[in-house]
Amino acid sequence: MNTTMKAVVFASPGRIEIREKRIPDVGPNDALIKITTTTICGTDIHILKGEYPVQPGLTIGHEPVGVIEKLGSAVTGYSEGQRVIAGAICPNFNSYAAQDGAPSQDGSYLVASGMCGCHGYRATAGWRFGNMIDGAQAEYLLVPDAQANLAPVPDGLSDEQVLMCPDIMSTGFKGAENANIRIGDTVAVFAQGPIGLCAAAGARLLGATTVIGVDGNARRLEISRQWGADIVLNFHDCDVVEEILRLTGGKGVDSAIEALGQQSTFESALRVLKPGGTLSSLGVYSADLKIPVSAFAAGLGDHKINTALCPGGKERMRRLMNVLQSGRLDLAKMVTHRFALDQIEDAYDLFANQRDNVLKVAIRPGV
Amino acid sequence: MNTTMKAVVFASPGRIEIREKRIPDVGPNDALIKITTTTICGTDIHILKGEYPVQPGLTIGHEPVGVIEKLGSAVTGYSEGQRVIAGAICPNFNSYAAQDGAPSQDGSYLVASGMCGCHGYRATAGWRFGNMIDGAQAEYLLVPDAQANLAPVPDGLSDEQVLMCPDIMSTGFKGAENANIRIGDTVAVFAQGPIGLCAAAGARLLGATTVIGVDGNARRLEISRQWGADIVLNFHDCDVVEEILRLTGGKGVDSAIEALGQQSTFESALRVLKPGGTLSSLGVYSADLKIPVSAFAAGLGDHKINTALCPGGKERMRRLMNVLQSGRLDLAKMVTHRFALDQIEDAYDLFANQRDNVLKVAIRPGV
Amino acid sequence: MNTTMKAVVFASPGRIEIREKRIPDVGPNDALIKITTTTICGTDIHILKGEYPVQPGLTIGHEPVGVIEKLGSAVTGYSEGQRVIAGAICPNFNSYAAQDGAPSQDGSYLVASGMCGCHGYRATAGWRFGNMIDGAQAEYLLVPDAQANLAPVPDGLSDEQVLMCPDIMSTGFKGAENANIRIGDTVAVFAQGPIGLCAAAGARLLGATTVIGVDGNARRLEISRQWGADIVLNFHDCDVVEEILRLTGGKGVDSAIEALGQQSTFESALRVLKPGGTLSSLGVYSADLKIPVSAFAAGLGDHKINTALCPGGKERMRRLMNVLQSGRLDLAKMVTHRFALDQIEDAYDLFANQRDNVLKVAIRPGV
Amino acid sequence: MNTTMKAVVFASPGRIEIREKRIPDVGPNDALIKITTTTICGTDIHILKGEYPVQPGLTIGHEPVGVIEKLGSAVTGYSEGQRVIAGAICPNFNSYAAQDGAPSQDGSYLVASGMCGCHGYRATAGWRFGNMIDGAQAEYLLVPDAQANLAPVPDGLSDEQVLMCPDIMSTGFKGAENANIRIGDTVAVFAQGPIGLCAAAGARLLGATTVIGVDGNARRLEISRQWGADIVLNFHDCDVVEEILRLTGGKGVDSAIEALGQQSTFESALRVLKPGGTLSSLGVYSADLKIPVSAFAAGLGDHKINTALCPGGKERMRRLMNVLQSGRLDLAKMVTHRFALDQIEDAYDLFANQRDNVLKVAIRPGV
Repeated sequence: MNTTMKAVVFASPGRIEIREKRIPDVGPNDALIKITTTTICGTDIHILKGEYPVQPGLTIGHEPVGVIEKLGSAVTGYSEGQRVIAGAICPNFNSYAAQDGAPSQDGSYLVASGMCGCHGYRATAGWRFGNMIDGAQAEYLLVPDAQANLAPVPDGLSDEQVLMCPDIMSTGFKGAENANIRIGDTVAVFAQGPIGLCAAAGARLLGATTVIGVDGNARRLEISRQWGADIVLNFHDCDVVEEILRLTGGKGVDSAIEALGQQSTFESALRVLKPGGTLSSLGVYSADLKIPVSAFAAGLGDHKINTALCPGGKERMRRLMNVLQSGRLDLAKMVTHRFALDQIEDAYDLFANQRDNVLKVAIRPGV
Repeated sequence: MNTTMKAVVFASPGRIEIREKRIPDVGPNDALIKITTTTICGTDIHILKGEYPVQPGLTIGHEPVGVIEKLGSAVTGYSEGQRVIAGAICPNFNSYAAQDGAPSQDGSYLVASGMCGCHGYRATAGWRFGNMIDGAQAEYLLVPDAQANLAPVPDGLSDEQVLMCPDIMSTGFKGAENANIRIGDTVAVFAQGPIGLCAAAGARLLGATTVIGVDGNARRLEISRQWGADIVLNFHDCDVVEEILRLTGGKGVDSAIEALGQQSTFESALRVLKPGGTLSSLGVYSADLKIPVSAFAAGLGDHKINTALCPGGKERMRRLMNVLQSGRLDLAKMVTHRFALDQIEDAYDLFANQRDNVLKVAIRPGV
Repeated sequence: MNTTMKAVVFASPGRIEIREKRIPDVGPNDALIKITTTTICGTDIHILKGEYPVQPGLTIGHEPVGVIEKLGSAVTGYSEGQRVIAGAICPNFNSYAAQDGAPSQDGSYLVASGMCGCHGYRATAGWRFGNMIDGAQAEYLLVPDAQANLAPVPDGLSDEQVLMCPDIMSTGFKGAENANIRIGDTVAVFAQGPIGLCAAAGARLLGATTVIGVDGNARRLEISRQWGADIVLNFHDCDVVEEILRLTGGKGVDSAIEALGQQSTFESALRVLKPGGTLSSLGVYSADLKIPVSAFAAGLGDHKINTALCPGGKERMRRLMNVLQSGRLDLAKMVTHRFALDQIEDAYDLFANQRDNVLKVAIRPGV
Repeated sequence: MNTTMKAVVFASPGRIEIREKRIPDVGPNDALIKITTTTICGTDIHILKGEYPVQPGLTIGHEPVGVIEKLGSAVTGYSEGQRVIAGAICPNFNSYAAQDGAPSQDGSYLVASGMCGCHGYRATAGWRFGNMIDGAQAEYLLVPDAQANLAPVPDGLSDEQVLMCPDIMSTGFKGAENANIRIGDTVAVFAQGPIGLCAAAGARLLGATTVIGVDGNARRLEISRQWGADIVLNFHDCDVVEEILRLTGGKGVDSAIEALGQQSTFESALRVLKPGGTLSSLGVYSADLKIPVSAFAAGLGDHKINTALCPGGKERMRRLMNVLQSGRLDLAKMVTHRFALDQIEDAYDLFANQRDNVLKVAIRPGV
């Protein structure tokens, strides 16, 4: 085995580079994965543009599919050579936050390493790959807390079939799970990018019988309808709020899922929500949000607003792969373009500019 | 029995009047109550000032304690002369909204009466007394859907002991119930007026072991501590957000309850909330709210925000009266001043201006 | 309109009769429905055989599809001539039990009528049609608490499409809802009669990705697979407990649904249940149940056992009809045989003896 | 530091012995605790009598209070010399079972060590101390998965104050948490031994306003009333089922907690349960249980039965210690007798025979 590897690092705002890095050492609770397939996330674009700050020189990417290269001495029940994925969020399930129900929000390792003087809970701190530690857009990835985070890929599922599990599917499905959906519900999903498409599929999987997909991109709405939306609305063609209220006889939807991170989608989600309904928010907001008092019934509407960070852990990954194995959903269709690791700058360019009807790209370091 | 009664009506912004009104007829599902004690709510002050619009001539007030004067032909299991209360919110439990889990949000009677073209769900429409129909600041009150809403007062509880049940206690406790409290939690309650005091008492009753009461009024904080808060913070004396973060080792509180309806209290509640925690909002907001992106972890903090309208119905009232009977809490202490119905303008004046350390007033039509 | 009607009554154990009865009067909260389609339930067979006691002379049947003939004076928002269904269970949503979360368990009307000295809660008392009051196997049916229980049938759904909503679908789906199903779960359903088939379909609708249908009837297992089971097991062909443990790698299923009411199915459901899992019981048991200590982990397995009576009410019916309208499920296929009301004895004979691969029969009084 | 220590081992049915054992080595994820105080549990009596099988030579006991002697190389955030407790159940929070919501039911370490061919879930396998590995009745205890299981004891809490946290309080409180208690509920707790007393205190802490303690021991009922029961019933003096039905007006209790593990207590708990209510079972059953069909409403009562194994983990322990710190409850009062480790046979004799009004004993190895 080599001692160095190729890795995609954030160099400076607007610039990523492929660099040669030392392959990391494997501690007792770690595992080293040889990446076979990874992808680029919308968040990576924010990092590239300098909108989300990470340390220059950090390897980016948080969606790993690979093969176990080396296991830490205390990690049991896995074997080298085994195909695995790990969630974009790699929680420390031993932490207070995890035992308290919020594994994605633990920052205890920041305390341990002196990076944080806090109590261990720190919002979004569970997101380590490509944020706090070196990430998945590389030939090798070190997975911390491997016992909790390595999820074996069942035979019969290809890399591209499971590529959405670490982030896109886990996040989108969490949006549906957070929406308090019951059988017979009407659910509107605002934005039908990869995460919104998964949220709509998740809403359907949880028993919603009228799933409404909203976007401004006709191609995405076409996919939305194919994958599970009962109704799709293009905000270029209608006043979405009015139309949804009309469709629901003035009552509003049982649940609304926000999957973009903008004031407009958040506000529309609130405006179409029935009294007593749930707004499940998935977006990453980059500016203060306004809650219009009229849309909020002055705070007296028995409304619920739930936010989420992508859930991780091997049990979560196992369940998501169950969905794929069952044939309920085929997310390999999400991959529209493929690149070698060396071509990743092209991939970023395509994906960042949403050219050629790209949904998601597959990056294959081994190729 | 007389055919007319005295009733306190909203005349015009800034002016209420005592008028003579016809005692209403009793339909098959109604009950007529002779009011023995009622009170004035903060909302009534908003109505008086014209900040919350009601029809001029409407009898106001929504917190009835009384005696059954006459029962509708289809109402069973009660007897005339029986002491009862009814919730401030009188839901129609036959409605879609109630069967769907949101009894306080039903407006089906508005549809039935042609007042609303909507589907039946309408935020806050469950609040009828002194809002949509004549209210409780009168000698008699007509209770609609009486089978669902009349709650017998157990022997041994006085009028003043149960006077907080219809609104203050039901709303405050709902704030605690909506906060997802678990044994051992730390809960901060922002504002310690009557509803905030009940929310703090409710949080303690549900197993919170560190209840933090926040207000700017030293007298209310003193009461807060007597009634259940473990720690009280006066925002005139410290930076409340900083102090709560310090007290929780940087982690934040498990739940925060907002009990005022201002940007400042809402925002502070969010700023002290741990990732994964719940903000339970009780306040009536009169302006758009801002969610600062920093306090909201960009939407990635696994935060939950729950709003509520006061729950009603006879089962709710029965449970609240159980609490009082058990001796867990004595809310009669909330009544600081007493007035006859004829003196109600003085009572409004005292209460609206928060003079003489008033918490709640008792209005006694029979005196 | 006539003053009398034909009705199917329980005469004595082993004998039902068609009798001429007076069409009932309509009180202020009632509605009279002209039955267009109804069906026979397994419970009716128990009644016929005298295994479940009802008053001789009572009209039986509890699954009505019909047209509103006459509305009580206090019932609003419906019109005569409108197509409706009502749940097999017709709760009084004004009751303490309903407001307390158990509408099917209210017996307040028994108290009101002097039939019961209890507090209002009485197990199964929510089941009135064909149990406490005249039922649906007749030309006309009086629906009590009509405001809460009449559910309009959307245009485009036929009688046979909605015929399973009042009982079979509501019960079966409740079995799935009570099973705490999460996305990616494995769920075993014991017995694949009409209710078990609906439970399996419901489990799938709620996100289970491995639904296992168990029965001893090959024809029903074939239907089970068509309607949603991923795996079917015939207990004549294998040791079901062993096979399910094998399929789950020794872990057991996340949830098990019992849909027959026998010791054997209950016990197998418990034996295949993972530690921490939920057993959702739907069966009507006619003998004491035994919980083997070994299957129960000595009470230390974090197991949950939930039982249920069919949920009713117009909102429940609305949601179930949503499912049918959405095309997620087509329950009209459940109807295998059709009869006029006059031929109902033949229908009972066919259904009781499970001849000719009968699943459910449609009884059509108007024909 | 010595290389050997004294440890209390199960020798053969009826006989425990104090033996000299080697102080165990500390792996990367372990911690070694010097025990300062421990206690004897009812389960230890079953072990002593040979009713619950453990390997001869195993050190027994599972309720440790102590001081960190040595930390594994991968354990961070603790310091040697720190006072800590660990739960009776020491879960591996990295396991599938833990991530799936059942940390107490994980047996993945059994798989890893070849002791079990199962999938990782194995009922009660989370209980390791004194069951699978050497326990706490010794001078030193090795804590596995120490990062997840070591809980620092706050200054100001004595050993005896926190001695109930690892098992008695965690189990008893779980019984209350599993009972779905809401504000204003009536809850009956069957058996008022140490765990039942904690369950009653927990029910009160969660908002039950009528807590009924049931036992046959007048001294324990006296304590029950002092610690939180509103009503106590001695089954020698009345028919408890009849009396509870009378007290609740025929309705039954909202929740019943079983805290003994006998048919009689289980059955009484079911017989007093309202339709729609929850039976929370804590007892360790040694024989098959019977569910009488009459008490079970033939399976149609919307009843819930929840069982539990004691929850562990440092967050659980932290919350329980919060309760003690808050002064809501003082469990030091539970300790009625004190012994040195050398005297433990006397302690077993006293405790097993329930002499001298013993509730719990403190064993102090250091003395």
